[in-house]
Amino acid sequence: MSRVLRWVLLLFLYSGVCGQCVVRATDRPNFVIIYADDLGYGDLSCYGHPSIRTPNLDRMAAEGMRFTEFYSAAEVCTPSRAALMTGRYPVRNGMCHDRFRVLRNNSAGGLPKGEVTIAELLRGAGYRTAAVGKWHLGHLPEHLPPQHGFDEYFGMPYSNDMLPAADAPAGRGKFFVEQNDYWRTPLIRGTEVVETAPDQRVLTRRYTEEAERFIRESGEQPFFLYLAHNFPHVPLFASAEFRGRSAAGIYGDVVEELDWSVGRILDVLRSCGLAEKTMVVFSSDNGPWLIFDAHGGSAGLLRDGKGSTWEGGMRVPGIVWWPGRIPAGVIQREPACTMDLLPTIAGFSGQPLPEVVLDGCDIAPLLLGTGSVERDAYMYYRGTTLYACRRGSWKAHFLTQTGYGVPEPERQDPPQLYELRVDPGERWNVAKEHPEVLAEIQAAVERHRATVQPVESQLEAALPVQPAAESKSR
Amino acid sequence: MSRVLRWVLLLFLYSGVCGQCVVRATDRPNFVIIYADDLGYGDLSCYGHPSIRTPNLDRMAAEGMRFTEFYSAAEVCTPSRAALMTGRYPVRNGMCHDRFRVLRNNSAGGLPKGEVTIAELLRGAGYRTAAVGKWHLGHLPEHLPPQHGFDEYFGMPYSNDMLPAADAPAGRGKFFVEQNDYWRTPLIRGTEVVETAPDQRVLTRRYTEEAERFIRESGEQPFFLYLAHNFPHVPLFASAEFRGRSAAGIYGDVVEELDWSVGRILDVLRSCGLAEKTMVVFSSDNGPWLIFDAHGGSAGLLRDGKGSTWEGGMRVPGIVWWPGRIPAGVIQREPACTMDLLPTIAGFSGQPLPEVVLDGCDIAPLLLGTGSVERDAYMYYRGTTLYACRRGSWKAHFLTQTGYGVPEPERQDPPQLYELRVDPGERWNVAKEHPEVLAEIQAAVERHRATVQPVESQLEAALPVQPAAESKSR
Repeated sequence: MSRVLRWVLLLFLYSGVCGQCVVRATDRPNFVIIYADDLGYGDLSCYGHPSIRTPNLDRMAAEGMRFTEFYSAAEVCTPSRAALMTGRYPVRNGMCHDRFRVLRNNSAGGLPKGEVTIAELLRGAGYRTAAVGKWHLGHLPEHLPPQHGFDEYFGMPYSNDMLPAADAPAGRGKFFVEQNDYWRTPLIRGTEVVETAPDQRVLTRRYTEEAERFIRESGEQPFFLYLAHNFPHVPLFASAEFRGRSAAGIYGDVVEELDWSVGRILDVLRSCGLAEKTMVVFSSDNGPWLIFDAHGGSAGLLRDGKGSTWEGGMRVPGIVWWPGRIPAGVIQREPACTMDLLPTIAGFSGQPLPEVVLDGCDIAPLLLGTGSVERDAYMYYRGTTLYACRRGSWKAHFLTQTGYGVPEPERQDPPQLYELRVDPGERWNVAKEHPEVLAEIQAAVERHRATVQPVESQLEAALPVQPAAESKSR
Repeated sequence: MSRVLRWVLLLFLYSGVCGQCVVRATDRPNFVIIYADDLGYGDLSCYGHPSIRTPNLDRMAAEGMRFTEFYSAAEVCTPSRAALMTGRYPVRNGMCHDRFRVLRNNSAGGLPKGEVTIAELLRGAGYRTAAVGKWHLGHLPEHLPPQHGFDEYFGMPYSNDMLPAADAPAGRGKFFVEQNDYWRTPLIRGTEVVETAPDQRVLTRRYTEEAERFIRESGEQPFFLYLAHNFPHVPLFASAEFRGRSAAGIYGDVVEELDWSVGRILDVLRSCGLAEKTMVVFSSDNGPWLIFDAHGGSAGLLRDGKGSTWEGGMRVPGIVWWPGRIPAGVIQREPACTMDLLPTIAGFSGQPLPEVVLDGCDIAPLLLGTGSVERDAYMYYRGTTLYACRRGSWKAHFLTQTGYGVPEPERQDPPQLYELRVDPGERWNVAKEHPEVLAEIQAAVERHRATVQPVESQLEAALPVQPAAESKSR
């Protein structure tokens, strides 16, 4: 080989293979978001659950960063997922409603086209993108993931309880019998229904296999994977390997299978040599659905659960893993939320932010341990109504209401005030002692309100034809 | 040197230095028990507290074994400590009472002489023994640690709130003002009162220094150290270095100083080369004192707190550390309790068990990962009355009562039944579905009752002369 040819070859290798590697490792990392459904703040071993075993999530936390004040952006599913995808409170894009709390199986609406999702943002930077699992941002073809920046989609368009079979018994009983025949939420690939009565017992395993395949096929192209499990939302189903394995009953079985899934994903990343090129986030869409007793989870020491703007409704597990970038074994006590993911991912991938009002912050300084994040305040919406606001360690409740079962909120005037770091269980109202804090929170609320424009809700409109059986689920 | 002389010298070295080392490492390890006062199940970071930072206890857990079902043997202080020291339910030796829940500053009684303590057991095996901190098993000289097997004692004879100053304001207010002048619980060295108004702000630091000195002076002799902190029992005091440091308020400050203390003890053991020769246990005497609001702790996801036989009253943090013997980073989900310490320590030190009814088990198989432990049932006493019983994962309540504020128990007939591993928060009574479990628990209670003889309570008798101010504390 001539000397010149050798140089040309080396240059080619450098600009091709090596150059791409350098770009991959520094400018275009992969992103994986693993999202559980109705998993509570207290449901993982690393968050203090005594009997549910989650060794893979515990290891993820030990190798990464575990947040103690990580928030979803809403108290129920649809608005929470809209906020994660867009970095915006759902009140900005109509993905919430005071009566119809989530999209139903006969809803006509979905995430508006104008909204920029994490997937769209990253596809603009040359990423492969896939959504696997529960979507719940519109089940009609025009609302499904392929219309929102995802190259691939496989999963259920809404909750696993939202289309009971026509012959399923009425009432709550059907949730507790682990009878797959009672449920008809379909599976979709792309925008086509591919199964109308999927076996929910193997759902977690199938989602995991789909996600693994997507990662393995990534080659040199950077990717974004959104893996949104349907569980531990009721009805609960685990595969044969996990059924009966946990000391914590079927709920424990289901969470332990989710933990297994997380372990598989991290293992695949490691075995593909992608661990140091991939940021993985684990979280949940809202707190535990307490009205389902042993089939619902635990918010640990937090008050109330899913559906509520008490901490138990919106503070959730939050673990971020990126070996070599995010320091290992850190317990992060600064607040963060799912709306931070879009701006943070934009920063790590070098993409410009969408030109809209964003409610999340770029939390790279927290993740990398390089600094703090300036955050004005965090708003607790229930539907379109602002119930509470947190600023620093202080949280004011303007309205209070249990997640489920109480028809109207109770107005708090003066607002109730809790110092969350002293009193995470929101037990002692200290409003009288701190009028100045209430005034600061009120000012933050007014600053926030000035940025919110009225929009039409996407959750109200229903299709003219009703499906065979309508769900009462929220 | 002649060949013979050289052999004699080698033999001497072997039987002396090396022989002693071998004995130390295998047959006579050191034991340290660090006992917190009123620390709740949910108060440590490694048990899920979001804002209290406990890096040293977290590290102790990561290097050792963290129990998720570790129990004190009583719902309040005196009986809990009596049980730890003797391996027996306090109903066996009169260290409990239905009305006088703990020993008071004018009590005449104390732990009966006939009881064999861990210290006596180990002194019989040649150990140096020291008690540092709160005793609360009798404050008269004849009841203090030197009469119960301890070579040394330095600490408070009862709770830090049990002798308010004569001019301290009446009522609860004095607990929340951090005014050291209001409190007069003395400090004792040996059996002599050495300070009548000690500065409680430096109590944790002084106990720690005392413990460190004892360890450093151990030389080649094996030792037993019982370090029983007075905090986080109210009134709360932290040293200048910790005051205001925690985001969780004064309660957080106090717990973070206790965490510092644990770190110091483990560091001293490491620096003295004793880490692999020493088993260290960390636990708490009962659950958090919830009626003290932000000055009380958290039982996490467990129900109720101090004073109660709900899980929050008696399930406490339990961490055991012994590098090289106890595998690192294990979450131990089998139950254990403070009464197990005496038989376990007897086993590790090769001492025979006292010839009395013991209620604890030797948990060496759990600690070493070599097997399981056969345990019939665990009894939840409140005073002399059996309120509840746990067998396997099941707990039956015969009587229920909130820890404080409700004068009489509510009789449960049929008993309430909870499956603790499914429902650690004791939320769903499943008695109707499991009559056979109730029958098994009832049989276990009868086996237990057959072993209990009536004894005179040590907690009733009072001294003829009243101290200047009497405490209302329990």
